[in-house]
Amino acid sequence: MVLDTGDTAFIIICTAMVMLMTPGVGLFYGGMVRSKNIISMIAMAFIAFAIVSIQWVTIGYSLSFGTDISGFIGGLDYVGLAGVGLEGEGIPDMLFMAFQLVFAGITLAILTSGIAERVKLSSFIVLGLLWTTLVYDPLAHWAWGGGWAGELGALDFAGGTVVHISSGFGALALALVIGKRSGFGKYSMEAENITTTLLGGSLLWFGWFGFNAGSALAANGLAVNALVVTNVSAAAGAITWMAASWIKGKPSSLGLISGAVAGLVAITPASGFVSPMSAIVIGGFAGLLCYGALLFRVRRGLDESLDAWAVHGMGGLWGALATGIFASAAIGGVDGLIYGNTHQFLVQLIDASAAILYAFIMTFILAKLVDKVMGLRVTEEEEYVGLDISQHGESTTA
Amino acid sequence: MVLDTGDTAFIIICTAMVMLMTPGVGLFYGGMVRSKNIISMIAMAFIAFAIVSIQWVTIGYSLSFGTDISGFIGGLDYVGLAGVGLEGEGIPDMLFMAFQLVFAGITLAILTSGIAERVKLSSFIVLGLLWTTLVYDPLAHWAWGGGWAGELGALDFAGGTVVHISSGFGALALALVIGKRSGFGKYSMEAENITTTLLGGSLLWFGWFGFNAGSALAANGLAVNALVVTNVSAAAGAITWMAASWIKGKPSSLGLISGAVAGLVAITPASGFVSPMSAIVIGGFAGLLCYGALLFRVRRGLDESLDAWAVHGMGGLWGALATGIFASAAIGGVDGLIYGNTHQFLVQLIDASAAILYAFIMTFILAKLVDKVMGLRVTEEEEYVGLDISQHGESTTA
Amino acid sequence: MVLDTGDTAFIIICTAMVMLMTPGVGLFYGGMVRSKNIISMIAMAFIAFAIVSIQWVTIGYSLSFGTDISGFIGGLDYVGLAGVGLEGEGIPDMLFMAFQLVFAGITLAILTSGIAERVKLSSFIVLGLLWTTLVYDPLAHWAWGGGWAGELGALDFAGGTVVHISSGFGALALALVIGKRSGFGKYSMEAENITTTLLGGSLLWFGWFGFNAGSALAANGLAVNALVVTNVSAAAGAITWMAASWIKGKPSSLGLISGAVAGLVAITPASGFVSPMSAIVIGGFAGLLCYGALLFRVRRGLDESLDAWAVHGMGGLWGALATGIFASAAIGGVDGLIYGNTHQFLVQLIDASAAILYAFIMTFILAKLVDKVMGLRVTEEEEYVGLDISQHGESTTA
Repeated sequence: MVLDTGDTAFIIICTAMVMLMTPGVGLFYGGMVRSKNIISMIAMAFIAFAIVSIQWVTIGYSLSFGTDISGFIGGLDYVGLAGVGLEGEGIPDMLFMAFQLVFAGITLAILTSGIAERVKLSSFIVLGLLWTTLVYDPLAHWAWGGGWAGELGALDFAGGTVVHISSGFGALALALVIGKRSGFGKYSMEAENITTTLLGGSLLWFGWFGFNAGSALAANGLAVNALVVTNVSAAAGAITWMAASWIKGKPSSLGLISGAVAGLVAITPASGFVSPMSAIVIGGFAGLLCYGALLFRVRRGLDESLDAWAVHGMGGLWGALATGIFASAAIGGVDGLIYGNTHQFLVQLIDASAAILYAFIMTFILAKLVDKVMGLRVTEEEEYVGLDISQHGESTTA
Repeated sequence: MVLDTGDTAFIIICTAMVMLMTPGVGLFYGGMVRSKNIISMIAMAFIAFAIVSIQWVTIGYSLSFGTDISGFIGGLDYVGLAGVGLEGEGIPDMLFMAFQLVFAGITLAILTSGIAERVKLSSFIVLGLLWTTLVYDPLAHWAWGGGWAGELGALDFAGGTVVHISSGFGALALALVIGKRSGFGKYSMEAENITTTLLGGSLLWFGWFGFNAGSALAANGLAVNALVVTNVSAAAGAITWMAASWIKGKPSSLGLISGAVAGLVAITPASGFVSPMSAIVIGGFAGLLCYGALLFRVRRGLDESLDAWAVHGMGGLWGALATGIFASAAIGGVDGLIYGNTHQFLVQLIDASAAILYAFIMTFILAKLVDKVMGLRVTEEEEYVGLDISQHGESTTA
Repeated sequence: MVLDTGDTAFIIICTAMVMLMTPGVGLFYGGMVRSKNIISMIAMAFIAFAIVSIQWVTIGYSLSFGTDISGFIGGLDYVGLAGVGLEGEGIPDMLFMAFQLVFAGITLAILTSGIAERVKLSSFIVLGLLWTTLVYDPLAHWAWGGGWAGELGALDFAGGTVVHISSGFGALALALVIGKRSGFGKYSMEAENITTTLLGGSLLWFGWFGFNAGSALAANGLAVNALVVTNVSAAAGAITWMAASWIKGKPSSLGLISGAVAGLVAITPASGFVSPMSAIVIGGFAGLLCYGALLFRVRRGLDESLDAWAVHGMGGLWGALATGIFASAAIGGVDGLIYGNTHQFLVQLIDASAAILYAFIMTFILAKLVDKVMGLRVTEEEEYVGLDISQHGESTTA
């Protein structure tokens, strides 16, 4: 098969759209912290993207997509992009590499939720490189690179497990290792730049079309299905979170956009397998579940500060299971629980559980290691002053 | 005919670009209100998009594009997307549905101009669902779904009537029903976050390429024509509004970006029918006309707060007529007035007039109804405090 | 050859992405000035885009791509887009015109760096039209329109010379003519809205994929190569600038994003000719070089205020030379210095030198002329008050 210009055009643009999601995460998070840390959050997203870009073309892509070693990791075939060419089937191999690169980049950015407003910049960089290499790359290999999960038949269309469970449960582990923000639970730590968060969320919703539809790797009906289910799941999540929070008080715009993200996360693994009507259910339940997870986290006094665990972790878990429930052979070739295929549901459960355990435990170990060697956290004074000044020597009005 | 990957790639991306316009409207409007209402404006855009997304896949698409009933409305064939498949001619039917969905979403967001800074959130949601179902869907059917206007030969390439006249004159009706903002005409209500407005305007200009070029439904010469005329019309509108306002005082950036939007609105129905040189005239005149309409509105003491009527309504009316004037058979197969085709101009006049009347009257009735049943407006105290606090329980720095 | 829907879809979207870069420059610059001038910077970017849009379709495209006259300028064949049709090879001729239009637009926006916070708006408009016509258009013709540079064999894939050297060295000339900002070197003129700058930088990074990959004018392997090298060069530049500035103090987010832009600039001419591994070197060195150029500028007390010279000028020069060094025949058909082709390096040197001289001298002359005729600079009082109030009659919170 030769290159197809339509498919190639599509995935190039989708790659750019997913790239934009990484600063999108930075803005989304940046608006939710106190103003003294807004630069820090956006800068970490940029840094995440920059260091992962280099990691990926040198070693990450190979570890993820190189010849399988024991179902766990890829070999070194593609180190430095050796053998990754500008030819391919439908799209160039090099484009597949680039599309995967932007996924790896945003995943690390999501992880910063757990260390927001208190992490030492240098330690984040070291941790980020280790995490991408030892957590993200294996998980990408398991699902998409010939690893055990894909072999088992686990379905993860666009990264519910690889991207969202990994970063969500990873963020939880980070939060436990680094500890609460100084004054957490005592002083208000409300979002201070909500417009910035809403803007970031807009870029996420936009880019997510590239994320999920692009995961078809071709401009075809499957991509279109992913586009549509992505949008209605986001809409449903926004509505249910808003409605649920309205019952308890006023419907915040942060709830609205968080619900949308919850819906987007949950549909991610399912987007190539379920119908639009199923997507309304998936997204709608995601809004409720993730909102509940957030309330649970707050009640438990956990400072996983920007709720990557509640939204990406729990939303990703629900998405993995929902794929096993709502998958329809008419769309992606595989039936789920509602069509009587219990097996697929169990496979999804195993895959998600393994990813949760691996991401949580490995992140915990890596964070402990970095903390021991170089200290994960800034001093109390630096935290009090804010990371913008203490880590970057900058402050900003807007 | 089978699917074309280039066309499919094109319309998927255009759909994403038009989606981004909805938060674009939110940011555009949000920057123009007082800071105490900025979250409210952006949140309403998100809510508009979310509720319309669900409305559209359940019933709206069918009402707009289902089998024609008496030229007025579509039947229930496609309720719940029944029969809307992943196959099609050039692009999947499902993709056409998605592309139309994002048009319906943004239209409701534009409408919020007329109720800015004083609407009750719950009432907006109810009104929005009613409006999309009873105003937008019929108008979409008239023009594009087999309704009377399309049958009559009315030309509306990308929604001058369906999107802009409907929301612009609808906003005027809303403003009349809900009444002026407390203190309007007495205290300054200048835009407070102009950077946010300029950012929103940027996203609008960007997305509008998807809006108009995508309306070719294929990546062909017609799409390219739409791209080019869209851009020069926007540029011309920006320049003439700036120039006109310069004569009266200083050329504001809000005038500049409003002029661009005026040019974008006016070229929307014409973009598949006119040449680039005609587009300069259309956009240039739109800048003057819409600026004049704004001055007229202010002089009349009308609080259609963010000028959807002046820019989208009057710009849309001009665009509908301009299509009948400047259409060239060499581009879209139909000649206009300047090529001696008086008939087409009259058809455009009829179509635009009918849309104005229908949108204005129906919106007026719906607004009165909602006002009677649940109250359209917040209390004076809530308005004084601002909608961010009173409706969402939030406030923001930026 | 007939139109290809994939290629056409690709370049339409790339055109839209590059369009978004112009407000991107406005936001990028706007965040770096004092808050009293933020509207001015963004407005100038919009104005640049608007006036160039009209200039381009009336005369600019023809001067750049019309029948060659003496290797220096294009003829008047395409004035008013005469003969520019909706048919073509691969993509419509009209689309090529549009893609080139957005390049011309952003280049003028970059130039505003040299006159930031002190230029008279009317003078900027006149200067901008002259500059695009007499500097940009000839340079575009030299490289891409059949002019002497292209004939000589100079390589400039996406505009290192045409866009970046021209605007960077042009900005330097402007800064010399207009003089320093009042109080420069005496009072702090730190960036005040860094979030806005980071947002603008995000849009630049995103749009740059369209800029460079789109310059293949087809959705093929070459475009994919450009995509990948663009991204890793940006990442490498961000990392080296951050690292170098870290040695001297704290790693600022402005350094991070400036390094990314430096990497993006440097890879621009090279992106169709070099491999990803070369791109890491090119971008990494660009980060160091441009950071050094900035330090040099500051030490010399030059007020080329937002460092278009350091980043675009010097980065563009490095990129032109790097193309001659790292070009690989396996990618773009031409070998560079590292493969023993000294000739290509010399050609690049001649091309870049000519562009530097031409852009600097012509810009200097034009600025002097405008200054003499209408005054380039606002009064001291207007500068003190800020351009937002004095030129636009506006002020903004965010």
